[in-house]
Amino acid sequence: MNLNVEKILIIGVGMIGASIALASKSKGIKVAGFDNNPEFLNNAVKKQIIDQSIDSLDEINSKNYIKDVDLIIIAVPPKQTLEVLNSLKELWNTDITITDTSSVKNHIQLKDVSNIILSHPIAGSDQSGLSAADANLFQGKKNVLCNPFDSSKEHFDKVDNFWKNALQMRTSLMTVSEHDLVFAMTSHLPHLISYALIDSIRLSNNDVGDNAGGGLKEFLRLSGSNPEMWSDIFTLNRVDLIKALAGMQVSLNNLLELISETKQIPDIFSHLEFLKNELDEIKSFKEDKF
Amino acid sequence: MNLNVEKILIIGVGMIGASIALASKSKGIKVAGFDNNPEFLNNAVKKQIIDQSIDSLDEINSKNYIKDVDLIIIAVPPKQTLEVLNSLKELWNTDITITDTSSVKNHIQLKDVSNIILSHPIAGSDQSGLSAADANLFQGKKNVLCNPFDSSKEHFDKVDNFWKNALQMRTSLMTVSEHDLVFAMTSHLPHLISYALIDSIRLSNNDVGDNAGGGLKEFLRLSGSNPEMWSDIFTLNRVDLIKALAGMQVSLNNLLELISETKQIPDIFSHLEFLKNELDEIKSFKEDKF
Repeated sequence: MNLNVEKILIIGVGMIGASIALASKSKGIKVAGFDNNPEFLNNAVKKQIIDQSIDSLDEINSKNYIKDVDLIIIAVPPKQTLEVLNSLKELWNTDITITDTSSVKNHIQLKDVSNIILSHPIAGSDQSGLSAADANLFQGKKNVLCNPFDSSKEHFDKVDNFWKNALQMRTSLMTVSEHDLVFAMTSHLPHLISYALIDSIRLSNNDVGDNAGGGLKEFLRLSGSNPEMWSDIFTLNRVDLIKALAGMQVSLNNLLELISETKQIPDIFSHLEFLKNELDEIKSFKEDKF
Repeated sequence: MNLNVEKILIIGVGMIGASIALASKSKGIKVAGFDNNPEFLNNAVKKQIIDQSIDSLDEINSKNYIKDVDLIIIAVPPKQTLEVLNSLKELWNTDITITDTSSVKNHIQLKDVSNIILSHPIAGSDQSGLSAADANLFQGKKNVLCNPFDSSKEHFDKVDNFWKNALQMRTSLMTVSEHDLVFAMTSHLPHLISYALIDSIRLSNNDVGDNAGGGLKEFLRLSGSNPEMWSDIFTLNRVDLIKALAGMQVSLNNLLELISETKQIPDIFSHLEFLKNELDEIKSFKEDKF
């Protein structure tokens, strides 16, 4: 089995898939693509984001059209990810390695498969579609791999090497349950709260528009993201999301007690100062890596 | 009364005060400064951020030292803002105009004064101190003015012109209660939630550090801000803050019902898509203005 990836197939040529395609092509990797929206697919060929288009999942599953493909990357929203994986059964347990890009993993339950490695390349954007494709989107960013099906080391290494060498990402390995809880806290909950905040501002009928500096701005990118992807993430990861929310409510209630001075130890200033210092620890990662 | 501001006095030479000083000097305005931390004050002179230092609030209040000052700008945290205003009683109802920079206004209650206009220059930063001073911090940003003491048009115009011409800001006028509610929603609540999120991540003991992309990043700047300022804001604006939080909880509960599918109309996808569109309306302001 060849660990060097010479040709990949990207299923879903939205912003994520197209960005992976551009980065791969810049490293001399050939890129085939499929999208269930024929317009997206044609545009991807026209704009030379992919080298070759494949017309259907059936054609992919028939093996004939992808003999020279080393790695398939599924770059569609989380629910569709599982559907696509299930529709490619002829490719299970072959030399072709399959991976994905889904932000939630617990729903991806498959049996008797040994060539599927799960990936979560972490790069946020409120942009979507081909026009937002960016060859450098993932450069230097983190990619969390999960191997819930105990796929063989060769398949794992192929995916790991691809992200590191072709996309220049940092990789790490987590279990699915670690992954989904950590990202519930660091990503899914912040997005949920952003949507709630936008909704409450809408409902309040206050003249907020031109006075949105100083805090709201940071939330804007989050609720501008792809609604299909986020409805999938919220629904599929609701158990961990609610766990993360419950934790945040405890902290919020503690802050409210300090603010309303029904509790005074520590005082609110010391508590905020403590949290500011705590931030420096969380910031031990380099901010520019995200 | 001369509407042209030729010399200003800045009380508090932290990041905000020093940034105002630098922008003013670049327009040929002379800048005197006071800070109750002598080290800050000396550094501000040494670094030529201010032209002249004044040693105490008493000296300012004695009038002798500030005969040629047209405008006093108080750039200290919200609680201290009121204390400073009360300590300058000899300057009330004189030709010298006094304004502030506090992010919350309802606690600034004064009687029989006609030369004080309240200002809220909106520019966020998680930096503080002289080294973060930036002559362009406020350029093109918004400044909300309040005139709760019915100060005369001359004083209002002097402050309004100063922000527009010297600092190149856009200004608007709100009542104190409008101001405090709108900023509870758009700024104070997002900051409160950021602190709660950081706290809950700290308490969870999960390995979050290097996996903080994709959402958390947007919150980081917020909880990194000056703890003294934010403990003042939360405490002084707690009524409106809790009002804003209650509104957000309603929206959050609605989202949770959709996610857990105990309520299905609208479905979660349609609701998120609706909120994404709603965002575009809120974004009617130019993002780069903040």
